[in-house]
Order: sequence, then C-alpha cells, then structure tokens
Amino acid sequence: MSIPPPAQRLTIIGVGLIGGSLARALRREHPALEVVGCGRQLPNLRRALELGVIDRYETDPARAVQDADMVVVAVPVGSIETVFAAIAGHLAPEAVVTDVGSTKGNVVTAAYRRLGERLGSFVPGHPIAGTERSGVEAAFAELFEGCRVILTPLPETDRAAVERVRALWRETGARVSEMDVRHHDAVLAATSHLPHLLAYTLVDSLASMDDSEEIFGYAAGGFRDFTRIASSDPALWRDICLANRDALLETLQRFSTDLSAVADAIQKTDGEALMKVFGRAKEVRDRFAARGKIKSPE
Amino acid sequence: MSIPPPAQRLTIIGVGLIGGSLARALRREHPALEVVGCGRQLPNLRRALELGVIDRYETDPARAVQDADMVVVAVPVGSIETVFAAIAGHLAPEAVVTDVGSTKGNVVTAAYRRLGERLGSFVPGHPIAGTERSGVEAAFAELFEGCRVILTPLPETDRAAVERVRALWRETGARVSEMDVRHHDAVLAATSHLPHLLAYTLVDSLASMDDSEEIFGYAAGGFRDFTRIASSDPALWRDICLANRDALLETLQRFSTDLSAVADAIQKTDGEALMKVFGRAKEVRDRFAARGKIKSPE
Repeated sequence: MSIPPPAQRLTIIGVGLIGGSLARALRREHPALEVVGCGRQLPNLRRALELGVIDRYETDPARAVQDADMVVVAVPVGSIETVFAAIAGHLAPEAVVTDVGSTKGNVVTAAYRRLGERLGSFVPGHPIAGTERSGVEAAFAELFEGCRVILTPLPETDRAAVERVRALWRETGARVSEMDVRHHDAVLAATSHLPHLLAYTLVDSLASMDDSEEIFGYAAGGFRDFTRIASSDPALWRDICLANRDALLETLQRFSTDLSAVADAIQKTDGEALMKVFGRAKEVRDRFAARGKIKSPE
Repeated sequence: MSIPPPAQRLTIIGVGLIGGSLARALRREHPALEVVGCGRQLPNLRRALELGVIDRYETDPARAVQDADMVVVAVPVGSIETVFAAIAGHLAPEAVVTDVGSTKGNVVTAAYRRLGERLGSFVPGHPIAGTERSGVEAAFAELFEGCRVILTPLPETDRAAVERVRALWRETGARVSEMDVRHHDAVLAATSHLPHLLAYTLVDSLASMDDSEEIFGYAAGGFRDFTRIASSDPALWRDICLANRDALLETLQRFSTDLSAVADAIQKTDGEALMKVFGRAKEVRDRFAARGKIKSPE
C-alpha cells in the first residue's frame, strides 16, 4: 500500500458491529496494522480473535490502550464516560482518541469531565452506519462505504488529531464532514432517533392489541421496511434516547403537532389538507432518493 | 395448462400497478385468456397494450364489461362507487365482480348502493401487495407471489362467486383468506394505513425544518427504509385514509397515547420504561420476521 496506515497500533474498545467493522475495513487496507480489542465479554473478544477481526485482546481498558497511537471507543453511549475515566491516565503521548457514539452532546460532556489534560487529543465522531443486527459476528468491512461520518471537534481539539481521525475514516470508504455538537444532535434526532422511537412504539402499540397475532400475519412489505429498525438493540437505543433527550423531545414535539393536524384533517374529511402533506412528503422523499442521498430500495 | 383458466374474458377496470400485475400473472399461466383493459387515461391504456398487459381496451366501463365473465375493479378506492354505478346494468349474467381496494367498509357500502340485483355476484377483495411505484409500467407478474389476499364476502354474496375469485387469486401465487369487513379495516389500519400516515407526516415534518436540506443529507439506511412508503401515490393514500377514517383514527389514537407515554419516559429519564417498550417491540418484530410473516430485509 502506498498510503501510510492511519495508525500503527489501533485499540478498539467495544468490538461490536461498528468497532468490528472498522477493524475489518482498516485491516483490509493495511494488513500490517495491529488491532487490540477490549471489552467486558470474553466470549465476544474470543470470537473477534477467531474471526480475525483483532490481533489480541485485553479486558482492562487501561492495559488495552498502552502503546496505542489510535484509540476508538465504540461502546454504547451510556458507557463512554466510564471508559474515558479508565483510559485517561494511560494513553500514550501521541495517542488520538475518538468515539462512534450516535449522540455527541453527552459524549462531549463526559470528555470534559474525564479526559483532563488529554481533552485536546479527543475527536468526537459518529459514523452514520449500522444495521439492525449487532455484535462482532455482524461486522463487515464494507459497512462504511459511501456512508457519512460526522466529526464534532471542540474548541480545545488539536487540529492534527482531527486530521488523523479524518484519515482513519476515509480509509473505510466513508465521507467525512465536521459539524457543531448541538447541530449534530438536532440533525440525528430528526433523521435517526425519532424514526427509531416511532418504529419501536408502533410495533409495541400493535402488539398490545387483542388480535395482535393476526394483525402481524397480514403485514406486508411496507410494514416490514417501516419496522425494520424496531429490531435494533433496545439497550443501545434506550441509551441514545436518554443521551439525546432534549433534541429528541423537541423534534418529537414538532412531529406530534403535525400528526395531530393530520388526524384533524382525517376527522374533518379534509382531503385537500391530506393531499398537501402527502404530496410534499412524496416530492421531498423522491427528490432525495433520486439524488442518492437516500439510496433507493432494491 | 391442465387447470382451466379462472375466466374466459377478464375485464380489468384501472390498469395500474395492481390491475396490470394481475393481468400479467394470469396471462403467464393462461396465455389464451382474453384481457380487456378499461381506464380514463388513453396513454396509459395504449402503454398497457404495447406492453402486452391487455389484449384491447375500452374507455367506457359499460362497454368494457360486456361479455366478460370476470370483472376486476382496480381503481383507487375513491372512484369505486362511480365504476359500480357505470357497470351494474351491463354485466353478463355469469359475470363475477371483485375489487382490489385497500379499504373494504366503504366499498361494501358502495356495492349495496350501486350494484342492485347483482350484489350477490360481487366479492370484495384486497390483495395485500404493492410497491411505492404506481402505473402499468411498474406492473410485474410476480407481485402477488406469497402475498395474502383477503376476501370479505357479504351475507348476500354467492358462494360460487367467492370460489371463482379465490381461484383467480390462487393462480397468481397468493394465499387467499376470508375475513369480516370491519375486522379487515381494523387490521389494515394498524399494519398499513397508520404506517403510511406516520411516514408521510414525518417526512413532511422534517422538510418544514429550516435546515431540511442538510438534515436529509445525513439520513442513513434506517431512515431510507422507514420512509420508503412516503414515496407512495399521495392521491391513493388520501383516499384510503378518508375511506377508512374511523378505524384509522382509532388506531392512531391508541398509538398517540403510547407515544406520549414514551415521551414522558424520556422526559423523566425513565430508562426502565423505555427498555420495556423497545424490548417488547424487538421481540415481537424478530419473532414475526423469523416466522417469515414479515420477510427479513435483503
């Protein structure tokens, strides 16, 4: 390879779908890269080793980050602060730290509280990628190809650290951009967190109906796609919803108001009002699908 | 073919995605079957002829049904009553009539009002199939394979007519069942009409935000699948929402109450309550996906 690897020794704390896929993507490009996995579940780490996702593992984060020049924290957002506290005093001088959390406000708060003098080496990050599956078994090298990765550097963040994390993600085929922390959380609340909340709530709401067995028996393709994200890891999404509470409640409030207006239109048999909402939505959805910003199905 | 065709001459009123796909599926099995198309848009009928979906066309429903022994009304639910009124006096004595409307209560009311002494020959039907595309160009013979078709016969419906419509749909590879009209409308409100309403409303709600261009730019696979149904035909879905108003408002009310409870849990940082909802939803969604009742993605 003519491009130098984005790290010599990479430590991934949390070897699940995202952490595992990142390791696979980087090893594909740079076979010599050493990847150290860290996590609390030994069977998962052993499986990651068997699958060739990592070279070795540690269960203690402080040991895992020793001598690493790049540390990726890929644990659920609810556990990031604990990991920061465990590694802050053990990072190599040249180490850059990044994370993959779906919310950034809470991660940044945790960084200010726990990273101390190493705050400048931390680059908050979020690869917008995933499937409804989880765990290292589901990891694959192509997960990030064509996806967006958003970095939300702080005023204190070293510019060189940002560039190293940008280079890391570019190797996976992702498109990297930067954004303000609050703006990131508002955008993701709208396009990701709220849809997950609606899908979970809808499936649970229908499941509580008397004839739910029969109801799901008649569900078709539209329902299947609409509810796919309700098969996502519940603990992960509980953490995300709580971590991004304010932005999520704000976008949910806006949505609920709009939904009430639509219900009113149906109540009043106001076809014109419905047509406006449905027509605008189709136009927007088609336009973005055509641009490839939302990939078309099949 | 050893199986006799389900009709000698089939008239399809409304040669769009559903009507066109039905014609394609039946002609694949029975090349000798004569299919007459009927509609208001000449270019669409001409295109259907070019594509080999129909053998000839008429623009007048009364002429189109002459000598047909099977008539499928595949127009949007808002137009079915007009078609019934136009054809009632012109049906051949042996003709059976069925429809493909996504709501059945309003279609049955229209049948009682317009079909007069031919009411017994009418079998209300609903193939639970479709894509977000529409029009005869999108029609394909395999659309109904493995799908459910629900028939909602009336007390007045001839049993022989029901059997003929069952045979018609079986030829397409669909699984046919029967259900009470009101029950059909409640089940479909839950699994189809409400999800469409939520998808349309969400996309429109986000599109009205200041930074909507950017917001959609960061939408990922989950959002794409969740909103696919918002690319469906707005006029069709306006009609469906109005036609199934009562059942839809009832299931929407239940959903809104559940959504408020979830919002409350987020507000109070009640992770346990969120975990219950998300966990139950994942379990139900996974269970039905595994049974193949909801087909898995990819």
